[in-house]
Amino acid sequence: MRFDLDPAQIPTTWFNAVPALDPPLQPPLHPATREPVGPDDLAPLFPMGLIAQEVSTDQWVDIPGEVLDILRLWRPTPLVRAERLEAELGTPARIYFKDESVSPAGSHKPNTAVAQAFYNQAEGVKRLATETGAGQWGTALAFACTQFQLECAVYMVRVSYEQKPYRKVLMETWGSDVVPSPVDDPDHPGSLGLAISDAVRDAASRDDTHYSLGSVLNHVLLHQTIIGLEAKEQLALAGESRPDVVVGCCGGGSNLGGIALPFVPDERVRLVAAEPSSCPTLTEGTFEYDFGDTAGMTPLLPMYTLGHEFVPPSIHAGGLRYHGDAPIISNLVRSGRMEAIAYPQSKTFEAAMQFANTEGKLPAPEAGHAIRAVIDEALAAKETGDERVILFNYCGHGLLDLSAYDDYLNGRLVDA
Amino acid sequence: MRFDLDPAQIPTTWFNAVPALDPPLQPPLHPATREPVGPDDLAPLFPMGLIAQEVSTDQWVDIPGEVLDILRLWRPTPLVRAERLEAELGTPARIYFKDESVSPAGSHKPNTAVAQAFYNQAEGVKRLATETGAGQWGTALAFACTQFQLECAVYMVRVSYEQKPYRKVLMETWGSDVVPSPVDDPDHPGSLGLAISDAVRDAASRDDTHYSLGSVLNHVLLHQTIIGLEAKEQLALAGESRPDVVVGCCGGGSNLGGIALPFVPDERVRLVAAEPSSCPTLTEGTFEYDFGDTAGMTPLLPMYTLGHEFVPPSIHAGGLRYHGDAPIISNLVRSGRMEAIAYPQSKTFEAAMQFANTEGKLPAPEAGHAIRAVIDEALAAKETGDERVILFNYCGHGLLDLSAYDDYLNGRLVDA
Repeated sequence: MRFDLDPAQIPTTWFNAVPALDPPLQPPLHPATREPVGPDDLAPLFPMGLIAQEVSTDQWVDIPGEVLDILRLWRPTPLVRAERLEAELGTPARIYFKDESVSPAGSHKPNTAVAQAFYNQAEGVKRLATETGAGQWGTALAFACTQFQLECAVYMVRVSYEQKPYRKVLMETWGSDVVPSPVDDPDHPGSLGLAISDAVRDAASRDDTHYSLGSVLNHVLLHQTIIGLEAKEQLALAGESRPDVVVGCCGGGSNLGGIALPFVPDERVRLVAAEPSSCPTLTEGTFEYDFGDTAGMTPLLPMYTLGHEFVPPSIHAGGLRYHGDAPIISNLVRSGRMEAIAYPQSKTFEAAMQFANTEGKLPAPEAGHAIRAVIDEALAAKETGDERVILFNYCGHGLLDLSAYDDYLNGRLVDA
Repeated sequence: MRFDLDPAQIPTTWFNAVPALDPPLQPPLHPATREPVGPDDLAPLFPMGLIAQEVSTDQWVDIPGEVLDILRLWRPTPLVRAERLEAELGTPARIYFKDESVSPAGSHKPNTAVAQAFYNQAEGVKRLATETGAGQWGTALAFACTQFQLECAVYMVRVSYEQKPYRKVLMETWGSDVVPSPVDDPDHPGSLGLAISDAVRDAASRDDTHYSLGSVLNHVLLHQTIIGLEAKEQLALAGESRPDVVVGCCGGGSNLGGIALPFVPDERVRLVAAEPSSCPTLTEGTFEYDFGDTAGMTPLLPMYTLGHEFVPPSIHAGGLRYHGDAPIISNLVRSGRMEAIAYPQSKTFEAAMQFANTEGKLPAPEAGHAIRAVIDEALAAKETGDERVILFNYCGHGLLDLSAYDDYLNGRLVDA
């Protein structure tokens, strides 16, 4: 059963979780001075519209009409009750998911890509540079740049560029320039950290170009809160007063933040982060100031981290292969407001298959982590006879990840 | 702008166009006797529920609740006004499309796959056999069989099986058995006609197995009319009394029939079929009785055909590579009620790119044919200053066809 919001009912403000955090969020630090970075430090890379959101302590932030116009191409997204999955599990829990896979790029990423492209264009920027691993974020920004007539350069980890060409083609179809990274060493397979360095260097070296990041930062999570805000209204349509637990997978934290942050103020709602056990930032990382990238070009961020030189194993959930976490997510886990749990990828594909064979939708490997946690919650509810209301973010489809399913079906999937 | 129907407003009957046809539809003939085939002739391959629909002359046919329950996983599908495309074209026309790409299989095909699986399961069938070319239909039936706990054997044209493995993996993820065809010659690249023969042979040789076809037949088009019925209600929500023209691409005719047939009785509405110029059945074929398959195992159908041994060039729009057309579509074209137009594939990719860069969605190559016709209609309306209302069926996304876009972007696309 699906619970739709009319396009006219799309939320017109984002929810800023920062003022709701306890303890307060620590600021990013300049790596040389270890002083808090100010707006001027960020101005070469970001427009002031986004910098203002990055440091905002307002509870609500207006969504510009130009952004809403584009989000309405696919938003509000459906809220679906996963009744077939419930029946298969024999659980008294009621499972709802927010279907972010319906966006043009197939994930939640365009929610922030559109906003970032808008603010950059509004301040006269002509071109954006970014990095992408397997390509989810790059495709989202490529789509958004087309909508605002911006040029877009995407530095793509070379091994993905060569082995997974489909997302590259999608970016090129939307007019982006896709460059294998690292640019200075054609024999190097590349890494996300190196690609970030290439993109930052590009943006810093050209007056017409800004840098764009698809996760981690406060303004990115802010833009994603439209997911949870819609879900709240749709749960009401479904007759639910609130979820008992909200689940999202966590790489940098943007889709998890998107669904969970609007529920932070309601202490009755449990919040759960699902991460890969091969990149266990929240469950086994250290909370400390660390760089956002491998090369150490970014400000220092207060976060759970495995160290900025940590290279995660090549699991299929490329979007979860990040050495750190968003400061907001890290704050919530550290204070105990949010729980975290880690899974080996075989367990997440098992869950994804169960979802595909009941609800029909083929999940992205990242989403499989959330689904694993949801199924475990639903089975726990079965044990106790608990009519738990579970909400999770179906952050993307797996149609461009079918080789991963092929590996799973043919016993080639390894747990790191 | 999107016009959504609430899931509770899903149509509960299909529209049968057969009684509206003038002249009346000619019956299929037995190839040996050239007498009309009766229900008994079809019983080894199809359940009586579908045979009854194949020969029905009722105007409306109830949709079983079990079918609606599954269709509601993604239906009603959105009706979208393509305002960004309109603006790009500078046309006074208002362009609406029905987004069938939101189904689990990514096209309109599950609309009939679910119904076919239901009627087979209801009559005790345990297993379905079918053929697939590039894989759209096979994935749809694989999905539907999972929902009704049926086994599914898909005979897949060998060259696609080997060169385009992603759809095969999707079918396997949904639990289907995918077999390269022809089964008796591992060196043969295969063809759709040979794959039909493999599937029919499989179904005819096993008591527990029926055959399933994804297009052409009356009951298949009947199941697809839910598209046009929803669109009618959604156009009313958009304040339109009716479309001036309804467009669909045409291979066998199921997606075109789905959107167009409910408008047949209203003579003010023009109906347009868009087909590839490399497989110009409606524009250059002959209207006559011909076999539905290459090997001559099916009844003779009254249709436009290029001859059942015609092998279309390997264009990317695999779903449009069929030597004939649905009898209902053929009847409409022959009587002049429906127009037909043919395009070379380069023109359709040009249109698809324009759609992707305005509306954000990446069309299947098949859908690119409809979009080409829509853009030409919109430009004609611009010439005359005509506020034409254009409705078309966006029959599927192109996320599993990205190699085709790669060819287009790199100048490797050839027009046959």
